[in-house]
Amino acid sequence: MSDFTTARPFPHERVEHWDAATEVAIVGFGAAGACAAIEAAEAGAAVTLFEAGSGNGGASALSGGEIYLGGGGGTDAQRAAGYDDTTEALQTYLTMAGGPDADAAKIALYARESLAHYQWLKDQGVPYKGSFLPGKIIEPAEDDTLIWSGSEAAWPFSAAAAPAPRGHTIQFMGWGGGRKLIDILEGRVRALGVDVRCDARVLSLIADASGRVTGLIVRIDGTPQFVRARKGVILATGGFCMNQDMLRRYAPQTLRLSEPIGENDNGSGILMGMGVGGDAIHMDEFFTTCPWIMPESLVKGIFVNERGQRFINEDCYHGRVSRTMLDQPGDRVFLLVDNAIFARPLDLARIEIAAVGDSWEEVERELGLPEDTLAATVRTFNRYAAEGHDPVFRKAPEWLKVLDEGPFAALELNIRTSFFSFFTLGGLNTLPSGEVLDRAGRPVPGLYAAGRATSGLPRWGHGYSSGLSLADCTFFGRMAGRSAAGIDLS
Amino acid sequence: MSDFTTARPFPHERVEHWDAATEVAIVGFGAAGACAAIEAAEAGAAVTLFEAGSGNGGASALSGGEIYLGGGGGTDAQRAAGYDDTTEALQTYLTMAGGPDADAAKIALYARESLAHYQWLKDQGVPYKGSFLPGKIIEPAEDDTLIWSGSEAAWPFSAAAAPAPRGHTIQFMGWGGGRKLIDILEGRVRALGVDVRCDARVLSLIADASGRVTGLIVRIDGTPQFVRARKGVILATGGFCMNQDMLRRYAPQTLRLSEPIGENDNGSGILMGMGVGGDAIHMDEFFTTCPWIMPESLVKGIFVNERGQRFINEDCYHGRVSRTMLDQPGDRVFLLVDNAIFARPLDLARIEIAAVGDSWEEVERELGLPEDTLAATVRTFNRYAAEGHDPVFRKAPEWLKVLDEGPFAALELNIRTSFFSFFTLGGLNTLPSGEVLDRAGRPVPGLYAAGRATSGLPRWGHGYSSGLSLADCTFFGRMAGRSAAGIDLS
Repeated sequence: MSDFTTARPFPHERVEHWDAATEVAIVGFGAAGACAAIEAAEAGAAVTLFEAGSGNGGASALSGGEIYLGGGGGTDAQRAAGYDDTTEALQTYLTMAGGPDADAAKIALYARESLAHYQWLKDQGVPYKGSFLPGKIIEPAEDDTLIWSGSEAAWPFSAAAAPAPRGHTIQFMGWGGGRKLIDILEGRVRALGVDVRCDARVLSLIADASGRVTGLIVRIDGTPQFVRARKGVILATGGFCMNQDMLRRYAPQTLRLSEPIGENDNGSGILMGMGVGGDAIHMDEFFTTCPWIMPESLVKGIFVNERGQRFINEDCYHGRVSRTMLDQPGDRVFLLVDNAIFARPLDLARIEIAAVGDSWEEVERELGLPEDTLAATVRTFNRYAAEGHDPVFRKAPEWLKVLDEGPFAALELNIRTSFFSFFTLGGLNTLPSGEVLDRAGRPVPGLYAAGRATSGLPRWGHGYSSGLSLADCTFFGRMAGRSAAGIDLS
Repeated sequence: MSDFTTARPFPHERVEHWDAATEVAIVGFGAAGACAAIEAAEAGAAVTLFEAGSGNGGASALSGGEIYLGGGGGTDAQRAAGYDDTTEALQTYLTMAGGPDADAAKIALYARESLAHYQWLKDQGVPYKGSFLPGKIIEPAEDDTLIWSGSEAAWPFSAAAAPAPRGHTIQFMGWGGGRKLIDILEGRVRALGVDVRCDARVLSLIADASGRVTGLIVRIDGTPQFVRARKGVILATGGFCMNQDMLRRYAPQTLRLSEPIGENDNGSGILMGMGVGGDAIHMDEFFTTCPWIMPESLVKGIFVNERGQRFINEDCYHGRVSRTMLDQPGDRVFLLVDNAIFARPLDLARIEIAAVGDSWEEVERELGLPEDTLAATVRTFNRYAAEGHDPVFRKAPEWLKVLDEGPFAALELNIRTSFFSFFTLGGLNTLPSGEVLDRAGRPVPGLYAAGRATSGLPRWGHGYSSGLSLADCTFFGRMAGRSAAGIDLS
């Protein structure tokens, strides 16, 4: 095996024997790979899909099966809930959520095609009940299929784009609908005659002297096999949250986090893409969250850091709030609650009670904070909350509560010991068509990528919203499949 | 020219004619390239140095000519100033300053060899007066040669390693000694018979099918020339602060900053290195500073963000304070001063007076901040400052002053309009020997790099200290020169 490396392609000219040939070779059987396979096969291409694990899945199967959708007047579920979502609002939100280098081309295309993509998902057999569940939740507890999944209703997003709930979850009883989503997609993949090879780890790309990707080397039954891909290779291998060495070199802030959401997300596709000249961008970006918003009354608390300072409007998406926790000094932040809103957090979250007291001054002392730090923060917050606004952080009025009903408590979220799940957002730079760009901005011939092997719609940890990654995987997986099959998308 | 690209090497096998041959080819004539050339030539190698500009310089010539040195009982200047600096303290400081992925191997080597490196610099003819200038300054105003140039005396660094001043500036009247430093190094380069080619832009590396770098293509007088480098190529091309497209893709936080410190720092060496499989790491990291610490009385002020919150102990290195400003919400931070410490900031800094008042409440109102935000911050600060400590941010007692002598002012530093200089810290991953590593952690044969084309001693913007980059350029430039010439450093 040591003859082959993800770091550099095997020279096409040295291939002595092709063990197999296909038109479109797809690496990775998560949502991105599955959607790419469906589209490529529907376009008439011969498709082979290689998966390192023993079955479909990837990080997609570990997800809630939620897809960020909207615009165009609203989906059926949005309209039923009273939200006539506009394409412009969706586009504006995605642009803000994309951070300082949001991908304008992908965002414009996705905003325009979002409703059609929803229909496509339904056409594949993905069920949507169409029922809206208001409030702050992580995933529907039963089988509802529309929730608020981002920071749409929170400042500053709410000031820039009309808020609408856009988290469309597959109809599934309880959490974890991602497994069902990917199983449905697998059914379509197989019905279309895609050649699926599991327990097949791709070791290296093959490229000719001009830099064109012509195939790959895959280990099956312990034997390296040379596979010709006449039309192209699609990398749908996921991110690198399971690769400690890559995390250290590219995203060292994640080293404090203990709960990667991944399976085989070892970054191999990103490395292979870079090895043939592909450009990997925003490799430092990642999503993280601690599920602190349940029960929902906790959202009426306020977060302070180890200096006793607030740092964000707590009504933002839980992942945005969590990501901002990592920017604070030290490892701990405290959610301050009074007796009226206190509720036991999810056990999963590993949130502890750090201090209780009959006054905020007592809580402050018990936390060992200097006098009139936390207490001053609460005093200012309470004073304005009593007037129904939050001029400092602009938390929306519906989540404001004067925290004056003792006893009081500080709940501790510890970056290192609480449950902070994470996955990476950096990856290959691609066109909306899925074509991988090199560092000079030109496509690498024969190479495509989608999902978390790329830097896509979600590319800024502070702007992540649930459903953005699966939106990106499913939609741009489709685009990559079509492009690789030879359909000109431009 | 369009036949050649930094993104991919030209195939060795297709070179029809070599226009020239050398043993060690060095790209870039800043401090790293110059030191590499000196060592390679002294080791007996034939050396050719290519510089895209019309003469020596690079970002090094724009610097203060300050080199971070110490340990081993202290340099002559340190000892004369009363600091018996230890290697352990230097190593501990460099490790903290290097952030979450500090390069332990480079740090250990540099800490051990720092005094010898100081002697080497003197041997090249770099003059050091040996005089220490205490206090907070950017660069010596006259020709003193030792200053505090980092956060050594500030928390948390001071708690982990015995503080010592380590900024050794070349003896030079006024700011900007970097030009003199590089001129002296050029004298040595030329005396050693190095073949120096200016106005010579390297377009592409040349590599053979095995991935070994065998030469480069350089444009001289409008004509591409193929140059064989029998022993190796050293990339000493600097960072990418002048390349807007690279900044956007890899370090978008810098897009707000207007004052890149660079000349031809367009990232070409990093791109060429990546093109032959080299790994570029920590590409999101950068140094930035606004020269706000002069006059020094301003350091007794406290910074607050647009929420009226403090965010750092203001006695840290000005670059660490400035870098932390970028983490705050919005574009503005305010330096709060009372009449006793107010002084006109450097014109260069473009710092404006945003508000004045006879009370902090009045300043708060004039800034449009919610009531009892900034005022509460000052009240808590003052109350502890009166007791001689700062339990919230741990500013050292010598910089604490109760801010109670009105009138009061808020000086505004605006990330977008004040003078925030910056340069990038991400780059090629190298061994202490200068060998460039690929993404699998193996050396790319024939390729070396040093200085800001690499991720070196300075690799974390929040820990940068003046003199770290030139320490890295000069010392690891030397190592690269020796390695490329064939000296085994291990």
